[in-house]
Amino acid sequence: MTKSLQRLIAAFRKFPGVGPKQAERFAMLVIMSDSNEVREFIQAIESARNSIKLCRFCCDLSEEEICSICSDTGRNRAIICVVEQPQDAAAVEKTGAYNGLYHVLHGAISPIEGVNSGSIKLQNLAERIRKSNGAISEIIIATNPDTEGEMTAMHITRLLKNKVAKITRIAYGVPLGGDIDYIDEMTLRHALNGRISI
Amino acid sequence: MTKSLQRLIAAFRKFPGVGPKQAERFAMLVIMSDSNEVREFIQAIESARNSIKLCRFCCDLSEEEICSICSDTGRNRAIICVVEQPQDAAAVEKTGAYNGLYHVLHGAISPIEGVNSGSIKLQNLAERIRKSNGAISEIIIATNPDTEGEMTAMHITRLLKNKVAKITRIAYGVPLGGDIDYIDEMTLRHALNGRISI
Repeated sequence: MTKSLQRLIAAFRKFPGVGPKQAERFAMLVIMSDSNEVREFIQAIESARNSIKLCRFCCDLSEEEICSICSDTGRNRAIICVVEQPQDAAAVEKTGAYNGLYHVLHGAISPIEGVNSGSIKLQNLAERIRKSNGAISEIIIATNPDTEGEMTAMHITRLLKNKVAKITRIAYGVPLGGDIDYIDEMTLRHALNGRISI
Repeated sequence: MTKSLQRLIAAFRKFPGVGPKQAERFAMLVIMSDSNEVREFIQAIESARNSIKLCRFCCDLSEEEICSICSDTGRNRAIICVVEQPQDAAAVEKTGAYNGLYHVLHGAISPIEGVNSGSIKLQNLAERIRKSNGAISEIIIATNPDTEGEMTAMHITRLLKNKVAKITRIAYGVPLGGDIDYIDEMTLRHALNGRISI
């Protein structure tokens, strides 16, 4: 195996979830494909790197200084949905059930991984709310339902307690299509406690 | 989701075994990592593309015109192990049990995928043997033990029948650490037929 092949395999190993065999297969594909495809791949990387920045308001990915959602006058500017990652905002957006704004934290508080409240875009959120002069009526916290996400949700609640009228957390419960039998106890307990009249 | 992000995700989708979610995660990593890491990644691709060519003799990947194995005078030049891919040669090499040369076909015959004997490096092998003037005493066929690999093995056998003294195929049998109970019937049948005295 040549040195430059090993270097390329090592580079692919850094991608999440890529093992030695898959990295090898990726590297082989890159070496054996025709130049046009490789050029397109590199250009896609460079163009994404060069054109994508974080929206000045919500920190979501954007090709403009202000993202398309923040600059959309048709959105409800009184609600902010706080998510961990840009993908999460995209997922909420896909539901079509939300018409407010977002705030992307780019992470969640995790003492184990050394991520504290200063390493994510929390100050930007506090600042955003301070500058809004009471125009924000609700913060919906949609961080992941895991330890880090919960810790982050608690932190946001403490941070914004008296600054926003309403702070909510997305509902916990059984996912559609799930099998009650296979759902963990904690989720089921949340689903019971959160039951709604029909 | 911005256009350039979608383009990058589409580029990652082309890698083998990469689904939409993983492609998204790869794209996010590329966008969020620091410039040095991305530069290293692109350089690794370009350097591999620019420096790696196929060895003039065995068609394995090489940074020189003749690969390190073909130019190693300590190897047994009378035996050629024929494999489908460069990774396969690397796998045989890792065993430490083989000291001959290789020939990399870069594929296997597959009528379904439109790969015929002309699309893989078979003519190079025939030519190599012709030019050797009988110096090659054995061809070990180490193509994959699947339909395409078997078809390719049969084709090589027909092609070289009277040109090499000995043509062999690597042994079929139970893999070490395997569980007899879980091994398919065909493999087990081969293992029985190929039994050796102990």
